[in-house]
Formats: sequence, structure tokens, C-alpha cells
Amino acid sequence: MARIQGYLIDLDGTVYRGEQLIPGASQAISLLRARRRRFVFLSNKPLQSRMDYAAKLTSLGIPTEKSEVVNSSQVLALHLSREAPGAKVFAIGEPPLLAELKEAGLILTDKPEEIEYVIAAFDRTFDYRKLNIAFQALKRGARFYATNPDRTCPVENGEIPDAAAVIAALEATTGRKVEKIFGKPSRYMIETALEVLALPPEKCAMVGDRLETDIRMAKENGLTAILVLTGVTRPEDVRSSPFQPDYIIPSLAELPALDEKIGGER
Amino acid sequence: MARIQGYLIDLDGTVYRGEQLIPGASQAISLLRARRRRFVFLSNKPLQSRMDYAAKLTSLGIPTEKSEVVNSSQVLALHLSREAPGAKVFAIGEPPLLAELKEAGLILTDKPEEIEYVIAAFDRTFDYRKLNIAFQALKRGARFYATNPDRTCPVENGEIPDAAAVIAALEATTGRKVEKIFGKPSRYMIETALEVLALPPEKCAMVGDRLETDIRMAKENGLTAILVLTGVTRPEDVRSSPFQPDYIIPSLAELPALDEKIGGER
Repeated sequence: MARIQGYLIDLDGTVYRGEQLIPGASQAISLLRARRRRFVFLSNKPLQSRMDYAAKLTSLGIPTEKSEVVNSSQVLALHLSREAPGAKVFAIGEPPLLAELKEAGLILTDKPEEIEYVIAAFDRTFDYRKLNIAFQALKRGARFYATNPDRTCPVENGEIPDAAAVIAALEATTGRKVEKIFGKPSRYMIETALEVLALPPEKCAMVGDRLETDIRMAKENGLTAILVLTGVTRPEDVRSSPFQPDYIIPSLAELPALDEKIGGER
Repeated sequence: MARIQGYLIDLDGTVYRGEQLIPGASQAISLLRARRRRFVFLSNKPLQSRMDYAAKLTSLGIPTEKSEVVNSSQVLALHLSREAPGAKVFAIGEPPLLAELKEAGLILTDKPEEIEYVIAAFDRTFDYRKLNIAFQALKRGARFYATNPDRTCPVENGEIPDAAAVIAALEATTGRKVEKIFGKPSRYMIETALEVLALPPEKCAMVGDRLETDIRMAKENGLTAILVLTGVTRPEDVRSSPFQPDYIIPSLAELPALDEKIGGER
């Protein structure tokens, strides 16, 4: 069995909950960095830029570079910039997603007759005008991509509608299905993360709190899957799931101890 | 076989197309009124009031009373005012729907903790704020109704997203299914129309241009079904449909001639 050199770490529910760092997370990452483990931090949310995530982690006590963060908007922008450089796109999304698309050389337009790609994302400024522009473009044959498949996004006092609202509204009215989704559990996210780590899947482990995204994505792509119990999953949820982790640890604080067992030579 | 005394008439595609009256429609209705046939005009659109529809028909040459118009917002408001008089409702919809709900004695609120019924409708002012209010209310257990099931609404140069967008966004994010839909082809619309006509179904015929709504609703509820070819259906579409009309006429202009055959004594 190959030894682990790199870790893909989910953020919300794994490193922090809202604005609260999981106890021991900072020490764990710093200990593993001393063992020269490589890291990428993964988020499905297209609401903040990679710079924002790196700044948040750093301020919480985990010094992080922008290049160590992978989120769904970046994965989508990277993929599109390779598949169709300079393509004309219309995104139902917030400013950080639009900035990411522009940075990748894509051209933003809201003219249905020009739009080559419609991007559905988590958008708290979603409205009928955007819905109709995307609808008209899709009826004319534009491609139909989405950042992330999440139904809801956890917030301080509960949850709010996520990208699934936009995807469903467009699917129901156009009769078309979204063609590619880039966030977890898609292989696109894994591919980008492995590219950043410059490691093959068998030398990497995914650490996360969700069976149907984090653990599923790891298992489907040949990574070691590590479940933490600081997020949405309870121990009793694991048995009935089709997505079985290789290891279960109480929290990220216990990752260094597990790394002693599964990590490569230092 | 019972003889026909009353007609339920679809509007768009049957009486007019956009702002253009179907040739001969005015003369046909006036001839049938002289034979003391009763009429209701049906619309799924919750964007105009019954008064607006009556005024439009009158201005196009078909003098019509408000009481002869049945639309999806009225059917819903009537049903709700009987099922839960004075209930607290939140509607994703435009002002004419809100006015209809208020007129029926229902109380409009946008506080999720108060909302007893969420109404999804065709709404060109749909936005994330409304989506989130409805989402929060549905998560707390509010009932989930919709005015009409249409994917799209025909407009001058094509079509635009209809109530299906709102229904789908709420279903996808809450994991719940809409409980009742009041527009065609629902039985609620037929029940209201027959109440207005004060006739039993076997003495009524439905005239419309759509197999999956007008003809389906007529056949499922014991009415005679008459298809006109002035809207979306072509003669060759009929054979493959599960919804078979009893009669097919080229346009509303030919209804008086058919009435000679199927109409009751004068």
C-alpha cells in the first residue's frame, strides 16, 4: 500500500464550524507540515475567493497560501478556460465567481444570443432577470454547467438555499439537464486538487465530514478516505451508507496520530 | 348522451393569440350566447385579475363579465379560503395574485415562523429573498401549494420561465414535493368552473388547444372535450397522445356548427 504524502482537507465541519476553529486543528496541521505533508483545502462554496479562504484559515491560526485552496468556482473556471478559451459565458453567481471567470480569460455577457455557456451557482442575488437570460440562452443551445450540487448551505442559525435552486429552476423550465457539476463529489475537483498537490491519488487522503460528498469522492477516485465526526455525520450514519471511509477519527486533531500509521517516510 | 349547455373556453391559443382575436371567435360566442349557452373562460396565468381578462375579452369584441372568468389564482384563493379561512400565507407571485388572496380573507406575511401556506406561482419578480422566506417556512412545516404547473409562458417573441421554476427551486432545496396545484389540468379548476356555470360535467364541453391540459382535464372529469387547431396542437399530434378529444374543429369559429349537433334544446 502506497504511503500518504498529501491531504485534501474539507473546510466547514472539518477545519472549522462557521467562525470557530475545531479544537486542535491548528496544531495538527502545523505538526503535519513539519513532516512535509502537502495540503489542499477544499470548498464547494463559490461565494468567496481562494484568497478569502486562505486569509480566513490564516487568521484562525492555520497559515495558508491561496495556492493551497481549491473551490468549485476555480475548478470550473480552470476547466472552461482549457475546454473553450475565451468563451462567452453567463453566470448566475456572486462577484467572486464572476471575478474568477474573468481572471481565467472568459468573457462575461448577458446577451442570450451570444452566450456559449450558462453557469448555475450559489447566488444570493438570484432573480427572475438572471433566470430568464439563462433560460433564453439554454433554449438557443448554450452549454449548461454548474459550480456545485448542494441543496443548502449551512449558516449560523440553520441553512439557506444553495446552487440546487438555480439548477432545478433551469432544468424544470428548459427540460434540459445540467451537463457538468464541478464541486464535490465531482472528479473535476479531485483532478484540480491532485494537480495542485502534484501527487497521484494513491499517495493522497481526503479528510471530510460528509459521506455523500467527501468520502464518496475519495473512494471513487482512488484516494484514502478519512471521516471526521466534527460535522454532519454521526457514527451510526456510517453503517447504512454506500460510502465507507477507510478510517474514522473523532476530529482533525487526531490526524497526526493516524498519519504516523498511514503516512510516507519523512 | 346528455346535451351540452355550457362551454369552458381556454383563452390563449383558443380565443386569441397574444393581442389578436381568432377570426370568427366574437361572432361564434355571440351566436352561442343567443342560444343561451353559458360560458366560463379559463386561464392558468396568475398575472392578471379576472377583471383584466374580462376587460381584454370585451375590448376584443367578446363582451364578458368578471364572473365568467376563472383563473388559477382565483381557484387557489377560493380553495384556501374554504380549507383554512384567514390562514397566514406567503406567495411567490405578482400583485394580482396577492390581491386575490387578500380579497379571499387570507393574511399575507413574510415571517417564516408565521407562514402556514407557501404559494408558488408565476412571478417575474422572483428573487432569492422570496426563495429563502418560502424555504424557511417549508422547513418549519408550512403547506406547499402552487397556482399552475406550466414550465413556460408564451410571449410575443417566444416564451419565458413560468411557475415551474419556482416550484422546482423549492422542491430541490427543501426535498419536499408541492402538495396541490390549482391550474389546468387540475380538478380544482374544473370544480370552480362548474360551480360558476351551475351545471354538471356531462352538460359541459371544454374547448382548448392543448392536449395535455385542456383535453386531459376534460376527459378526466367527465366533460366533452373539443380541440381547436389555432394554438399549439397540430392534427398529427393527436394520434400519439394519451388524451383524445371527442371532437376536433379548425377554430372557435366552427363551434356554433358543432353546437348544432351536441348542444341541448334551446
